[in-house]
Amino acid sequence: MDIGFIGTGNMGSGMVVSLMRRGHKVSVYNRTAHKAQPLIDLGARAVRSIAEACQFPVVFSMLADDRALEEVTLGAGGILEALPQGAIHVSSGTVSVNLAQRLAQAHSSARRGFVSAPVFGRPDAAASGKLFVIVAGHTPALEQLTPLLEAIGQRTFVVGEEPHVANLIKLSGNFLIAAVIEILGEAMALADKGGVDRHRYLEILTSTLFGAPVFKTYGALLADRKFTPAGFAAPLGQKDIRLTLHAAEALAVPMPMASLLRDRFLRLAAHKREELDWAAIGYLAAVDAGAQFP
Amino acid sequence: MDIGFIGTGNMGSGMVVSLMRRGHKVSVYNRTAHKAQPLIDLGARAVRSIAEACQFPVVFSMLADDRALEEVTLGAGGILEALPQGAIHVSSGTVSVNLAQRLAQAHSSARRGFVSAPVFGRPDAAASGKLFVIVAGHTPALEQLTPLLEAIGQRTFVVGEEPHVANLIKLSGNFLIAAVIEILGEAMALADKGGVDRHRYLEILTSTLFGAPVFKTYGALLADRKFTPAGFAAPLGQKDIRLTLHAAEALAVPMPMASLLRDRFLRLAAHKREELDWAAIGYLAAVDAGAQFP
Repeated sequence: MDIGFIGTGNMGSGMVVSLMRRGHKVSVYNRTAHKAQPLIDLGARAVRSIAEACQFPVVFSMLADDRALEEVTLGAGGILEALPQGAIHVSSGTVSVNLAQRLAQAHSSARRGFVSAPVFGRPDAAASGKLFVIVAGHTPALEQLTPLLEAIGQRTFVVGEEPHVANLIKLSGNFLIAAVIEILGEAMALADKGGVDRHRYLEILTSTLFGAPVFKTYGALLADRKFTPAGFAAPLGQKDIRLTLHAAEALAVPMPMASLLRDRFLRLAAHKREELDWAAIGYLAAVDAGAQFP
Repeated sequence: MDIGFIGTGNMGSGMVVSLMRRGHKVSVYNRTAHKAQPLIDLGARAVRSIAEACQFPVVFSMLADDRALEEVTLGAGGILEALPQGAIHVSSGTVSVNLAQRLAQAHSSARRGFVSAPVFGRPDAAASGKLFVIVAGHTPALEQLTPLLEAIGQRTFVVGEEPHVANLIKLSGNFLIAAVIEILGEAMALADKGGVDRHRYLEILTSTLFGAPVFKTYGALLADRKFTPAGFAAPLGQKDIRLTLHAAEALAVPMPMASLLRDRFLRLAAHKREELDWAAIGYLAAVDAGAQFP
């Protein structure tokens, strides 16, 4: 298929590579043009405006936050103005439930399709087509997107017709990852101060009841106390907890753990350690127990 | 080997079955004698006192809490009085770090061996020899115990010479299980109120980053909202969080999540719902969000 792709950061670039590997022709736009150059070298077509990227039946956006997605979509010369009638905008960024609801409404009023397709996975998973894709939108649109979603993900989970539901699931998943970091950090601070080798402790956990990727990946970072370079920087995690709490407030769901995580991120921010990986929130239990600030 | 076994509750009974399956001769004692009868029928030898169960080179105890273990071990006619010099007491119950330290000291002074060998797994895993055994004690003792530990567990993790370290790891593991119940409960309350089917939500989580047994087992209970009959009753989980907090206080390790879990268990207790499975603490987030108390 001929498609447009807006936002070629670490995640977006990997997704474009996976789309091209399956033979799709991708026209890429990035606000900072030189970041798209490696993709052009790999065969992507460069376009110079959002409008140009929208001259296709499908345009993806992979943008870091609500402000970027809202501006790119609803701003002058944005996606909604440029997209042909009946074409589909697939938003893969981790944005708020509220923005997804508003964009779904705006696209629908303008007779354009809007699909939320946030993903789980890091840049390497994006580049190898191994993301998990959570997708929601109108069924005919989803059917049209199938070959594209199969190109970027090892598995696609369809979660209904309302796009914002996919965003809610994605946010709650990132909340769970941050929560695992926190609880593992507390348990490891206790074991470590009690004389247990941290790597041995992690090996026991992941060989028994806690064998999931989330425990292995973040457990290794916590055992190594290695938080730079950031695979996923703390401010991004902080944003996702903020959006989780927004969604929880809108639905009247008290989440004491999410509130605790909010304070952990605020503490990293207060100490101006925004360059650290979000796994560093799990080290704060060790700091509380007497270890040096990272 | 000829061994004694004290405490044939749900877990202890399963362990005795696994020991006999491997050909060990087990003399069983339980305070409430009739609970040991099914094991007698399977070929275990019945003894009428703690002292009689201690006339072997090795005696296991599998007791529910500190009070029971302390009384059985240090009381008149208890294990320490009855055990032959050089014999080994293996304690598999989930007890406090402090008691393990005191019992290690008392056995050592009396020239008896003391080994902590707490286990992860439920009664069915005990009966099928599929427990995970965390073990700490003097190396010669551990070598002597190897065939016994291999009978009860699918895997044994040796964590050093100081018995209480095994107890610390076990408690921190139960803290992590309770913490997973809480965070999964919060995420599921949010997703559920946001219109996501709970079972579908759990399927997405466990198919992606959260594929560990702990998420599958407790996620299913939370999705079903099924907390009776209890596989592991709330007061037992409450005890383990209490002992985790005791250990954390002794080591000066603040653990905000453990404090939050303490309050969750207190709330179940305040509502006199001690018959529920400990997974019910994960349902309290849904209650906070408007669902009916279980």
